[in-house]
Amino acid sequence: MFITFEGIDGTGKSTQIGFLEEFLNGNKIPYLSIREPGGTDFSEKVREILLSTKSEISSIAELMLFEAARADLCEKVIQPALDKGIVVISDRFYDSTTAYQGYGRGLDINTIQKCNQFATQNVIPDFTFYFRLPLEESINRRNYREFDRMELAGMEFFGKVINGFEELAKQEPERIIIIDAHKSREEIFEEILSKIKSGINEFGCYSCECRNPGN
Amino acid sequence: MFITFEGIDGTGKSTQIGFLEEFLNGNKIPYLSIREPGGTDFSEKVREILLSTKSEISSIAELMLFEAARADLCEKVIQPALDKGIVVISDRFYDSTTAYQGYGRGLDINTIQKCNQFATQNVIPDFTFYFRLPLEESINRRNYREFDRMELAGMEFFGKVINGFEELAKQEPERIIIIDAHKSREEIFEEILSKIKSGINEFGCYSCECRNPGN
Repeated sequence: MFITFEGIDGTGKSTQIGFLEEFLNGNKIPYLSIREPGGTDFSEKVREILLSTKSEISSIAELMLFEAARADLCEKVIQPALDKGIVVISDRFYDSTTAYQGYGRGLDINTIQKCNQFATQNVIPDFTFYFRLPLEESINRRNYREFDRMELAGMEFFGKVINGFEELAKQEPERIIIIDAHKSREEIFEEILSKIKSGINEFGCYSCECRNPGN
Repeated sequence: MFITFEGIDGTGKSTQIGFLEEFLNGNKIPYLSIREPGGTDFSEKVREILLSTKSEISSIAELMLFEAARADLCEKVIQPALDKGIVVISDRFYDSTTAYQGYGRGLDINTIQKCNQFATQNVIPDFTFYFRLPLEESINRRNYREFDRMELAGMEFFGKVINGFEELAKQEPERIIIIDAHKSREEIFEEILSKIKSGINEFGCYSCECRNPGN
């Protein structure tokens, strides 16, 4: 089972990833938690380039770097883990690329989606939780320093990214589950658990350690 | 005018690039000579990653890295130079990607060509000189140490790359000019000059410094 968490920063993704990890740990369900870009030696090197030269490189070069890191991560880490039946959790995946580089930076959406498919060799998340929150609220949740740095152009950019996530959620309602990030942490986690239950059940009973089928 | 040189190593590309640079220098025709990957700070960083991790990264990640470096180079260096009327010479360009990563490593040719178009934003060389030489001969021209390292699998790979270049030359006979690398250096350079003459003539007379139209 492959679960991804999407949405702009400040919407509560990390908290829920933490809850899910705790739950899987507690129930001795094998899992792997990753973040993009990163997760392999090569991808970490790419991450360094992205962080060190972000403002200077072209949008297309940036996109291709993300795809390079993702291709390596998929081939060496994600696909082998899924093949072994390990639950994979990813903080962001290709929907972020479509939302940020496509809707945000204005690169052709269709081309990006083809690059995504090619880089992942068609690895598709089983569940994608998109954390929906208006831009202003996500900013209020972040620290003030970060808010200071965010200029008007940046605001406009993040607005486009949010529209992108909304579009993607409309296009793939089966895979992309919209999470109302206004709800309490506990409510949200209940919602996530109920959605992934069918996948979790394959590991057998997780209320105790009997591991009998079903739950 | 954008001129690229293609073919496997050991076919004499560098010598001809040197001759052409000398010719353009001598005739005070502004030019820019580049190699791929490289040519911008970012692309040089990508080149370092490619050289340091070549054996470990997946073929798709390798392709995407080449495209990232190319996107940056096209946007920042090649296109601005062409816009200013500067002659651009490149030691390898996207045909190498199609030949090495596509025909050589077996990635989907159609997808690679779409990535090439996207990364370059449709920058297309006016003249591409493909240096044709059988694999065995190109090996004989290289140093023995390099030959020692080349295992049977490597030989097979380079054979496929050569087939790739041949295919590309068949598909685009107008742009890709086949150079018989058996010919003498002087003969080859004459052939190259005669092909690019129409483009060179735009700079005016280059036999002297009058710069009158035509030649």
